[in-house]
Amino acid sequence: MADQAFVTLATNDNYAKGAMVLGKSLRNHNTSKKLVALIGPQVSEPCQSVLKSIFDEVRVVDVLDSGDTAHLSMMKRPDLGVTFTKLHCWTLTHYSKCVFMDADTLVLSNIDELFDREELSAAPDPGWPDCFNSGVFVFRPSVETYGKLLQYCTEHGSFDGGDQGVLNGFFGDWATADISKHLPFIYNLSSIAIYTYLPAFKQYGGNAKVVHFLGKTKPWSCTFDAKSKQVVGSVHEATTHPSFLKDWWILYSSTVVPMLQEQYGDKPFHSGVVEVNHLHHMQLSLTVKLCHFFLSWIYLFIISLSYGWLARKSTELLMWINMLSNSVIQS
Amino acid sequence: MADQAFVTLATNDNYAKGAMVLGKSLRNHNTSKKLVALIGPQVSEPCQSVLKSIFDEVRVVDVLDSGDTAHLSMMKRPDLGVTFTKLHCWTLTHYSKCVFMDADTLVLSNIDELFDREELSAAPDPGWPDCFNSGVFVFRPSVETYGKLLQYCTEHGSFDGGDQGVLNGFFGDWATADISKHLPFIYNLSSIAIYTYLPAFKQYGGNAKVVHFLGKTKPWSCTFDAKSKQVVGSVHEATTHPSFLKDWWILYSSTVVPMLQEQYGDKPFHSGVVEVNHLHHMQLSLTVKLCHFFLSWIYLFIISLSYGWLARKSTELLMWINMLSNSVIQS
Repeated sequence: MADQAFVTLATNDNYAKGAMVLGKSLRNHNTSKKLVALIGPQVSEPCQSVLKSIFDEVRVVDVLDSGDTAHLSMMKRPDLGVTFTKLHCWTLTHYSKCVFMDADTLVLSNIDELFDREELSAAPDPGWPDCFNSGVFVFRPSVETYGKLLQYCTEHGSFDGGDQGVLNGFFGDWATADISKHLPFIYNLSSIAIYTYLPAFKQYGGNAKVVHFLGKTKPWSCTFDAKSKQVVGSVHEATTHPSFLKDWWILYSSTVVPMLQEQYGDKPFHSGVVEVNHLHHMQLSLTVKLCHFFLSWIYLFIISLSYGWLARKSTELLMWINMLSNSVIQS
Repeated sequence: MADQAFVTLATNDNYAKGAMVLGKSLRNHNTSKKLVALIGPQVSEPCQSVLKSIFDEVRVVDVLDSGDTAHLSMMKRPDLGVTFTKLHCWTLTHYSKCVFMDADTLVLSNIDELFDREELSAAPDPGWPDCFNSGVFVFRPSVETYGKLLQYCTEHGSFDGGDQGVLNGFFGDWATADISKHLPFIYNLSSIAIYTYLPAFKQYGGNAKVVHFLGKTKPWSCTFDAKSKQVVGSVHEATTHPSFLKDWWILYSSTVVPMLQEQYGDKPFHSGVVEVNHLHHMQLSLTVKLCHFFLSWIYLFIISLSYGWLARKSTELLMWINMLSNSVIQS
């Protein structure tokens, strides 16, 4: 339906890359909905151009320019600037219903069925599961709701300093009112669940429809080896999102990078994709492995020596200080 | 109501201590319900006696002796022995409704209102929030349900190897069917939530009614200084459950330990409560702090020296190996 849209937000070029991959993943799974990207004024011209070729609508938002209400609210709570920006999605009133998705999410199958849900539908947050995670949610654009949200935000602030705190405060009955507003966790499968309850991930993770790269290391912070099709550098993340992170990079490197290259032309830009010579790469890893092996042993040797020394010295020191303090107390 | 009961399970003396504290905490908050403890045959005589003085009913359960169905199931799935033991609570058919609580939970206020809920009501698990945590749940004892559970258990096993996997499989529509069966998270506040989403804990944790000491370190694994009323040894756990762990120990040391002492008489037993001389304790901490300070600096100095040396040597080694491997390839 033309009056329904997926909406995302990118405040800088890095998040814009995420938004591009998200948009591509929605298109690849044949969504029938419109795609909208809200972007901050900091997003560069080439990135804006790529976003415009993937999304139906790219709208620059800057809460300071978005009308008196937001401006006034902003003056009172400058700490909540980014939060205000996300709430801006409620102003998209030319759509009757929308699904907001964070730029660090990736769609693994068609999820148009989310539009059957009502505002505010979202999946539980694994940190405090009576809160919903605001990375994926169904909402109805409305100037009235937008105004109330800004007012709530100004009056109560955000318990976590971000939009999730504000939205959970405003839609405070989510945990108790209506089960249909609880999106299954597979629509917002966040990385944290993989390592906190691995058996459940193994049982249900295969049905994942949306993966959310929560945490400090974002997919675009990693490096991808175009030859071996492997994410390099972030081994930890790569093992915790075994295939999801690779899925992200394959989509990004094959579809988004060529578009960025075209836009940047001769200007250099950081794609994050490297072409490591395969033989050289193998040689290098052997070298690194050998070095690692030798250095580990040398290091262990030094550590064990220094620990032995420390243990002896600390016992002496302890006895000395004890004697001293006892004599002080006795005198 | 006489036909409603809180039920817990203790398979050994350590968990029995937990059950005693849980029972005491329920009594202290004036529950009007009966208290039932299911215990394994390994629980010692003195512990059984203390449990009998706190609980209305103490029942020794051993799945191998619990009838043909369980016996046969057990033969096929010996790995699920402990799980079968917990499922045993469904055989308490002289009660119309029960609330099961793990022995590592602590009640912080009267929670008799849980009996207004229906089977199977439980709070979400923070690991995979579409699963419920089986540490606290409302159920209706029924021989029929018990049989079906054993059958399910034998046929499908448990995706996590424990009762939580079985129960989530059997009551598989919990996440989607009925919001009234979602107990608020404050009825099963598990430790993990405190460090994964601290702002939410700060916002909502004050309303906690039941705390669940999930994880490897149980309250009874720590040591308590009776003089300073401080949990010693497990600093990490003490900071993550700031007051909860202390609450547990104050209740245990003041009410449970005297009962255990009476039962054990002259026989020695490990209470976990120590009486550290206060002055000595203060002196010792000062000594420890001083030592720690000096040793940290010495250690840092050695580490920085050895790292510098390692860095130089590793560069040399790397160059040397690279030269060697290049010459091998060229030759």
